[in-house]
Amino acid sequence: MSKYWNKTINQTTPYVAGEQPKAGEKVIKLNTNENPFPPSPAVAKAIAEFDVSTLRLYPDTNATPVVNAIAAVENVKPSQVFVGNGSDEVLALCFQTFFEKKADTDLPVLTPEFSYSFYPVYEEFYGIRSKKIPLREDYRLEPSDYAGVPNCGIAIANPNAPTSRAISLDDVAAICKANPDSVVLIDEAYAYFEENYETAVSLLPEFPNLCVVRTTSKSYSLAGIRIGYAIASEELIEGLLRARDSFNSYPIDRLAQAVGAAAISDVEYHRKCREELLKIRKYTEEELKAIGFEMPESSSNFLFAKPPVCISAETLYKNLRAKGILVRYFSTPGINDRLRISIGTQEEMEEFIRNVKEEIANVKNS
Amino acid sequence: MSKYWNKTINQTTPYVAGEQPKAGEKVIKLNTNENPFPPSPAVAKAIAEFDVSTLRLYPDTNATPVVNAIAAVENVKPSQVFVGNGSDEVLALCFQTFFEKKADTDLPVLTPEFSYSFYPVYEEFYGIRSKKIPLREDYRLEPSDYAGVPNCGIAIANPNAPTSRAISLDDVAAICKANPDSVVLIDEAYAYFEENYETAVSLLPEFPNLCVVRTTSKSYSLAGIRIGYAIASEELIEGLLRARDSFNSYPIDRLAQAVGAAAISDVEYHRKCREELLKIRKYTEEELKAIGFEMPESSSNFLFAKPPVCISAETLYKNLRAKGILVRYFSTPGINDRLRISIGTQEEMEEFIRNVKEEIANVKNS
Repeated sequence: MSKYWNKTINQTTPYVAGEQPKAGEKVIKLNTNENPFPPSPAVAKAIAEFDVSTLRLYPDTNATPVVNAIAAVENVKPSQVFVGNGSDEVLALCFQTFFEKKADTDLPVLTPEFSYSFYPVYEEFYGIRSKKIPLREDYRLEPSDYAGVPNCGIAIANPNAPTSRAISLDDVAAICKANPDSVVLIDEAYAYFEENYETAVSLLPEFPNLCVVRTTSKSYSLAGIRIGYAIASEELIEGLLRARDSFNSYPIDRLAQAVGAAAISDVEYHRKCREELLKIRKYTEEELKAIGFEMPESSSNFLFAKPPVCISAETLYKNLRAKGILVRYFSTPGINDRLRISIGTQEEMEEFIRNVKEEIANVKNS
Repeated sequence: MSKYWNKTINQTTPYVAGEQPKAGEKVIKLNTNENPFPPSPAVAKAIAEFDVSTLRLYPDTNATPVVNAIAAVENVKPSQVFVGNGSDEVLALCFQTFFEKKADTDLPVLTPEFSYSFYPVYEEFYGIRSKKIPLREDYRLEPSDYAGVPNCGIAIANPNAPTSRAISLDDVAAICKANPDSVVLIDEAYAYFEENYETAVSLLPEFPNLCVVRTTSKSYSLAGIRIGYAIASEELIEGLLRARDSFNSYPIDRLAQAVGAAAISDVEYHRKCREELLKIRKYTEEELKAIGFEMPESSSNFLFAKPPVCISAETLYKNLRAKGILVRYFSTPGINDRLRISIGTQEEMEEFIRNVKEEIANVKNS
């Protein structure tokens, strides 16, 4: 509390990101869903060829090289693409642009009960009413739960985090159709990690109220460069541009634009990394199940796994942390019996499994 | 207007940045106050030595290397420094953190009548009441005009833009002293361009309500990299961190952190560029005065110059634009008789002066 902070800042509970190890600290980092593979070789090339003297000049406000790369890969018009400083910024601007403030409406934004924990922070920070829709058995999202509920907007992560479960495009379409006057935000930060990968981008011709948010952080191995994007109807994109130009006109620096465009354009490397990651996910899932873990089928680059009854998620989390292995634990009731485990390299996951087995053996022997 | 945009977005008038030339277009660009010199050689070195594989990992949320570089150069504690994605983002977060919303107070934020045109946009976007304080003769800011005026905050650019005039540290101190319950934002984006350079950072031990905002865009020749910062009491910085973590936890990417830290630490290059720029500013000022322009004494890297009566600012602006020379013209009454001219290289300014003389000769001969 401070007399110099305004009412909103005094009342908001900020987001807490997953732990970042100290510089030089040696850990196996499976807690923030980063990609274990380096970015495309095209990124190193773009950086090596970058003309440093151009940094004296402002960047292109629209990040046109990135917009064009996305439009080409996703098969949409450049005017349907909005690029921001990481998908968190894009999501924040979506909440600010599409969802009505408490002062202006009684209607809430609908979000799944367990989902990305930044959504309720945005709602508090921007003064937006909120309504959480419970998930069904095993964290399944039932699309009909989003029909007939008065709202001023909907935000759904697909695949959902931390649950790792996805809904189908038919489900997304049903939600958009049931809410023609609301913007339906589909946050695909964790999409692409499926052989039969589908994106809601293909539904855009049908639904002017659909806004798909993506990021280069996960599937493109670029968490360190901060490029997120929205793909939507031109009408929604224009709203986001208005919000951006009321906040920060030059969000993406020149180096990041070069890096982002290079990575997004290397379609083949992107696909190869996924193939590799899916193999490691399969290995990890099988190993964990063999020692008594339960988890829903993952559509993403992490697992949401419940340890066998002999050890609590919290204890396992703490004991692994003490050994330099970081996974994510949420103390929230309803999900505090599980760990969210990012998929690392094969070696990292073998080391992880070895340590988990050791912890379980320790408990059983004590 | 769109039914999918909320009330705020439908009502806000976004900021319009200075024109950016198309890629490949050959122009003399004196319209957005960029530095004519390339960034420090330390920047090229930092980029060449950067480990690209680390881009798969999230960056340090606090941009610690940049914070530490600033703290060392400005002689403050790291806990007194907040780094954001350009000073526009830092300013936006300051407006969101320190200034009370209309819904919560009747008090306005005070800003100079003619100042950075993003301030009224922030006020509209965040629903903050606004009161403009007129400038005195020749755009002079009179500090006593900011005493005894009820307010919920004050934002002043020093040096002011587009006027180029600065107030003294005594004036800043007087404003802070007269408003102990309000945060006084001193936006020093255009500071440093003086031999006897002073920054309000030196006043921080006296004033917990003072927040100094800076940028690497101008004096560090890094408009293309997007690093701005606030230096203030720990109490104010903590408020900004709360706002950041309610919006976007990782605003500065890994490459930008390396670049920013390198540039800020090269104190000698920074000083040398200023020396060079001041010589060119003096040349430009003398040449313009010799052909009948009037302007206040500049404390920044631009001039705010009124052409001789034979040609209007608007006509001169358009005619120069047609010849590929970009300067900034504001149509706002009270400042629409002037041009804001950034200081470029000596060669660019000679070419600029030659063209201005030509335009004036054309008018006189017609």
